[in-house]
Amino acid sequence: MHTKILLDEEHLPKRWYNILADLPTPLDPPLHPGTGKPVTPEDLSPIFPMELIRQEMSPQKMIDIPEEVRDILRIWRPAPLYRAHRLEARLKTPARIYYKYEGVSPAGSHKPNTAVAQAYYNMKAGVERLATETGAGQWGSALAFATKVFGLECTIYMVRSSYAQKPYRKSMMHVWGAECIPSPSTKTKAGTAVLEHDRDTPGSLGIAISEAVEDAATHANTNYSLGSVLNHVCLHQTVIGLEAMEQMAQVEEYPDVVIGCVGGGSNFAGIAFPFAGDKLKGSHKETEIIAVEPTACPTLTRGLYTYDYGDVAGLTPLLKMFTLGHDFVPPSIHAGGLRYHGASPIVSKLVQEGTMTATSCYQTEVFEAAQTFAQTEGFIVAPETSHAVRVAIDKALECKKTGEEKTILFNCSGHGDFDMSAYDAYYAGKLEDYEYPEQLIRESLARIPKIPT
Amino acid sequence: MHTKILLDEEHLPKRWYNILADLPTPLDPPLHPGTGKPVTPEDLSPIFPMELIRQEMSPQKMIDIPEEVRDILRIWRPAPLYRAHRLEARLKTPARIYYKYEGVSPAGSHKPNTAVAQAYYNMKAGVERLATETGAGQWGSALAFATKVFGLECTIYMVRSSYAQKPYRKSMMHVWGAECIPSPSTKTKAGTAVLEHDRDTPGSLGIAISEAVEDAATHANTNYSLGSVLNHVCLHQTVIGLEAMEQMAQVEEYPDVVIGCVGGGSNFAGIAFPFAGDKLKGSHKETEIIAVEPTACPTLTRGLYTYDYGDVAGLTPLLKMFTLGHDFVPPSIHAGGLRYHGASPIVSKLVQEGTMTATSCYQTEVFEAAQTFAQTEGFIVAPETSHAVRVAIDKALECKKTGEEKTILFNCSGHGDFDMSAYDAYYAGKLEDYEYPEQLIRESLARIPKIPT
Repeated sequence: MHTKILLDEEHLPKRWYNILADLPTPLDPPLHPGTGKPVTPEDLSPIFPMELIRQEMSPQKMIDIPEEVRDILRIWRPAPLYRAHRLEARLKTPARIYYKYEGVSPAGSHKPNTAVAQAYYNMKAGVERLATETGAGQWGSALAFATKVFGLECTIYMVRSSYAQKPYRKSMMHVWGAECIPSPSTKTKAGTAVLEHDRDTPGSLGIAISEAVEDAATHANTNYSLGSVLNHVCLHQTVIGLEAMEQMAQVEEYPDVVIGCVGGGSNFAGIAFPFAGDKLKGSHKETEIIAVEPTACPTLTRGLYTYDYGDVAGLTPLLKMFTLGHDFVPPSIHAGGLRYHGASPIVSKLVQEGTMTATSCYQTEVFEAAQTFAQTEGFIVAPETSHAVRVAIDKALECKKTGEEKTILFNCSGHGDFDMSAYDAYYAGKLEDYEYPEQLIRESLARIPKIPT
Repeated sequence: MHTKILLDEEHLPKRWYNILADLPTPLDPPLHPGTGKPVTPEDLSPIFPMELIRQEMSPQKMIDIPEEVRDILRIWRPAPLYRAHRLEARLKTPARIYYKYEGVSPAGSHKPNTAVAQAYYNMKAGVERLATETGAGQWGSALAFATKVFGLECTIYMVRSSYAQKPYRKSMMHVWGAECIPSPSTKTKAGTAVLEHDRDTPGSLGIAISEAVEDAATHANTNYSLGSVLNHVCLHQTVIGLEAMEQMAQVEEYPDVVIGCVGGGSNFAGIAFPFAGDKLKGSHKETEIIAVEPTACPTLTRGLYTYDYGDVAGLTPLLKMFTLGHDFVPPSIHAGGLRYHGASPIVSKLVQEGTMTATSCYQTEVFEAAQTFAQTEGFIVAPETSHAVRVAIDKALECKKTGEEKTILFNCSGHGDFDMSAYDAYYAGKLEDYEYPEQLIRESLARIPKIPT
């Protein structure tokens, strides 16, 4: 009876799985924010290297992972797959619960899976510096690590409130040689404009994106890098699901339920796309694939499926996705990585068409699940990850009622070492269970730009 | 060319290696603090379960690991062994550097290896609560995890200055259901006495030990638990070296140099004892086995090999060991886990007799090494661990000069996720390179009690 299922590094996937090739109808194209016309590769070339642009739009089903990238991924990949024996026993469920543990990476989450690939392709293209934004710091620290490995410089605009509240993610970025700037800053026009309007703004991910994009667009040899949402980011994360599928096959299992938390959608895409691909191709049609988001930022469950900007300032292309409106400001919950108004266009389409479903959880029930997990499986996980844990537990408890022996797989996307203040707040009874008022969501949705289709 | 060498969980050791069986002459016995006579098992029985007392004094070479303990160790064990290809390339050394990574445990260090075993034996003995002390919190969080797994309660006396400076280790203990009390406290006579004398004392490990021992001795169904120094603790840590030996054999290697940092000595013992055992038995006699300590607390390099107390108050048995004097207060360096006046009696004896050697490092050179490691191998390690990294790098640089292709193995005992403020201090230039003045050490050594032998 295995506790963890390991793969030798020879089993690290050699190719990423591109679900675009298996979609029954093509994805609606991103539109240029100025013209409203589909963006061309050339439109994106000032801020992305051509190889990533190619991947963003590729019809090719399997895409080779460069050996130099695999060489770095091998530091922590293949990641272990766990059978949650002790959690199952605690729940007294007939269900079998498995989780893929991505907390073993140097930065402590799934984020380096794409950071390494992005840093590599930029290095190959002769780029010398990457600019990016980060909220709570998971993505910023991952890109700091990856750029250092490939000898690039890195500038990270970190949402000011997080910069103050979570200083140790910034410290990690420093250890890996990156520059971390509280956003909004006076380094960019976008940041300066915001500061002139409100000196004391706590900042937001939307503002930080605007700053990083402007930095990349206005500096030589500097590109922009995004940690979620885009197709190529989801593509790089599919190593998670590809490995999990092989690991489950080793113990002769295939999941009935696949679960991941969703902010921009990349860790969820990572574990879910290979299984969703099976579904799209007609096998394992009954697999339930569940995206979990916070009730405080209910993009997939209460948003609109339409074209919208990726940032507040409207500098990014318009993406067809579920959105709460590009100027929607979610309340300051502890799962900072899930506070995004939009979601991956591919995830959005698959939810819209029913291949996947979405649900939402309150903060307190999420931390309660995380405590149960820590006290049985040992690992203290990130608040974001705890959303997936909550739904995995709920599904297992359903099985307890029905007697079904379902196989449940969830993505345990990161550890909570830098989130202990959130656990403190939970124990102190200070977490608010925020549910966004209907009226505010309606108003925010009404501000989404009208695009002629 | 492997990056990491994994073992399947079937290869988790079934038995611990007890080096006591291979010592050429027996260890000098611990002495009763009241009578000065060798302690008997009965003397220890008020605070330890009989099985651990038996292991403390056992002549048996291999001791079975209970299946219930192995079942929990499997959460993170066997731990990966890494070949540090990128570090080697950075150093341009002909040496081959390997490291055993213990940061993968739920608490982030090697400490759970013994915490799980200790909690298990206490549970089997019908004990309901464990009391312990912790400095920076590594040990306290490990025991909190282990006691929760076996359904025991846990009370942890945490050195007051650390309690304030490193609040997130305390948060981890809470998640795992333990009670964490700043020490000195008014819960014990020992603590109360210290507070009456000095309300504003920052506390010390010596005081916290006194409190935990008193707690255990004065409460029904409560035992005491220690995270280092003692023979049974070192015994439980030998899984590290036993696994490493098997992993190195897989790639047809045997180390020329084995390195670990030393506070009480348990992680060092863990990696070193199996190799020291080979040496004692006459094979691989040339293996260099190096204990690394901070210059600020130079127990093995500048202390005396003699009987001394394990705590300030003199409540513990007298141990024959290297000591700086039981009331020695090391300066407040960031490697809190290495701030102990004594060391494992077995490690002390092996250093005294030349099977192992000891060296010391300054703080700044240690953090410089940790940065090099993080920027090549990815992992940001604990300040304690960084001492081992420093000497591994120095040995590799020696090989660069001499052209020798030595095989270097070090124990990468824990991650630095809860130590980022130490890295901040390093980058801010605030770390002092403390070397303890000869006069102060002489004075402290003069206060060691005279024991008739």
